[in-house]
Amino acid sequence: MTVLVLTCEEDVTADAVVLQLRRRGVPVLRFDPADFPGRADLAVRVTPDGQVTGHLATPGGRVALEEIRSVWVRRPGTPGAHVSAEQRAWITLECERALWGALRATGARWMNDPDALERSRHKLWQLATAARAGLRVPDTLVTTDPDEAARFQKGYADAGSGLVVKSVSGRHPQNPPLTLPTAAVPPDADFTGVAACATCLQQRVPKRTDLRLTVVGDRYFPAYVTPRTPTLDWRFLPADASTWVAGEVDGALRAAVRRYLQEAQLAYAAFDFAIDERGDPWFLEANAGGQFLFAEIETGMPMTEAIAAWLAIRRE
Amino acid sequence: MTVLVLTCEEDVTADAVVLQLRRRGVPVLRFDPADFPGRADLAVRVTPDGQVTGHLATPGGRVALEEIRSVWVRRPGTPGAHVSAEQRAWITLECERALWGALRATGARWMNDPDALERSRHKLWQLATAARAGLRVPDTLVTTDPDEAARFQKGYADAGSGLVVKSVSGRHPQNPPLTLPTAAVPPDADFTGVAACATCLQQRVPKRTDLRLTVVGDRYFPAYVTPRTPTLDWRFLPADASTWVAGEVDGALRAAVRRYLQEAQLAYAAFDFAIDERGDPWFLEANAGGQFLFAEIETGMPMTEAIAAWLAIRRE
Repeated sequence: MTVLVLTCEEDVTADAVVLQLRRRGVPVLRFDPADFPGRADLAVRVTPDGQVTGHLATPGGRVALEEIRSVWVRRPGTPGAHVSAEQRAWITLECERALWGALRATGARWMNDPDALERSRHKLWQLATAARAGLRVPDTLVTTDPDEAARFQKGYADAGSGLVVKSVSGRHPQNPPLTLPTAAVPPDADFTGVAACATCLQQRVPKRTDLRLTVVGDRYFPAYVTPRTPTLDWRFLPADASTWVAGEVDGALRAAVRRYLQEAQLAYAAFDFAIDERGDPWFLEANAGGQFLFAEIETGMPMTEAIAAWLAIRRE
Repeated sequence: MTVLVLTCEEDVTADAVVLQLRRRGVPVLRFDPADFPGRADLAVRVTPDGQVTGHLATPGGRVALEEIRSVWVRRPGTPGAHVSAEQRAWITLECERALWGALRATGARWMNDPDALERSRHKLWQLATAARAGLRVPDTLVTTDPDEAARFQKGYADAGSGLVVKSVSGRHPQNPPLTLPTAAVPPDADFTGVAACATCLQQRVPKRTDLRLTVVGDRYFPAYVTPRTPTLDWRFLPADASTWVAGEVDGALRAAVRRYLQEAQLAYAAFDFAIDERGDPWFLEANAGGQFLFAEIETGMPMTEAIAAWLAIRRE
């Protein structure tokens, strides 16, 4: 049975996992949905008894749908990339529904399930779910109302504290036009602009360090950052300005993270926690498509191997 | 507690349900997400204990988030409609995540849950799920492979039967550029074009009539069509060329439909069945956003009232 890896052509993280799978002798097919149709063929048959059979033939090889043991949703492109612009909308829609519908109908294991992935992209849902799971979350306001924003800041300023501002959608910094680093809100901030776009303001957690907790199935990979200079958002540091070190997390945190993942129906997530002066973790976000290779390279923790091992499990 | 109806301005079906809710004395707010931001304001706060509070202020009124009992996802527009094109991509993304994240975090009841709605748009998943639930489904092939398509047809032609072709994405005919009526495949069909776009071919069920089974929670509204002339796709008939008549469905069909809806996590769906010469129903599709008003008007069955009653139930 084959592992299907859905990603674009240039993806060194996928390269690493594919290598691990090959070493294990697990058949793997790497495929970019952008190549469908045109460079790839699909045939899916649903018979009256509910059997789903067929094949996906791609530039990298061919797989029977009933032989797909798991699907790793990494950085898949959109079908129709090679279709002329005039026809693309219709062909993309039809081919998206065909390809994803076929994969959803197979019964393969997902890392991550497409619906769980979409749900998990909502930061407000994340925060509410994390709090219900027993994780400590920072007080957060998302608003288009300048007065609400000013009142929220005043409350924290009066208590001698402050806020940060971050993006609501939390796009990864590798998509520069659509990303905003987390930044401190100055005491004299003018909130007029908040009316133009939903803005996420969050209680600033005075932090000692950051914890990146990567979870693969039931395996936990905690990495702590030690920046040379304190920073609000480690993603924007130059590569040599911080060091990730493998560490531990206690049983209470593991249990709460497990509850979160169960509720979120995710097999993989990269959690960001701020560790405060007392050593307590604050949930900032859980990125279901988050990167892990940078932390693996610095800490030596075997996340690539864990992902390959999870994907290699046969479906029931 | 308020019912939130997400839909565009011109939606007579929403008008009918809103009227029913008002008659029942249930507070209702109708809102088009396209009006956010700009014509609507949002403030959502998640506190460290996981409480979600805030408000949505719209041209039609204001609601506290914790007072939303249910959300009816009808025909919602996309946030950012009133934003200049240059800024729209970013603002739309941020505001979508803010608005839908807020609603997902509230704990309101959904008709239908956004993830369930998205999953249900995959026809191949529908067919596999329907068959597992015990519904009879027609043999179906979705493919970009002309040879597979020709072989599939030959198998049915050899048995003295035929195929229909329909769209994979199943867009509603009210979006004309993106819709294809279900049509018979001629015996001498040239399948070369199948390579250009995923194509859905389906065993043609010789049918006596069509059953439109609208389900609202646990209430079933079966309507049978009696066209003056036999037709493959009643959606494209002139309004006066067919008549819908209220009817019955047996317990086995109800039970299978109930299993389907449980698996699909849907509170509402409009099922299309072909009734064959022996009177047996064949599942064609379940449209989670399907129209019902045309069938209500002709049959008198109280679907509008059922939807209003479901939406009026208070959340736990």
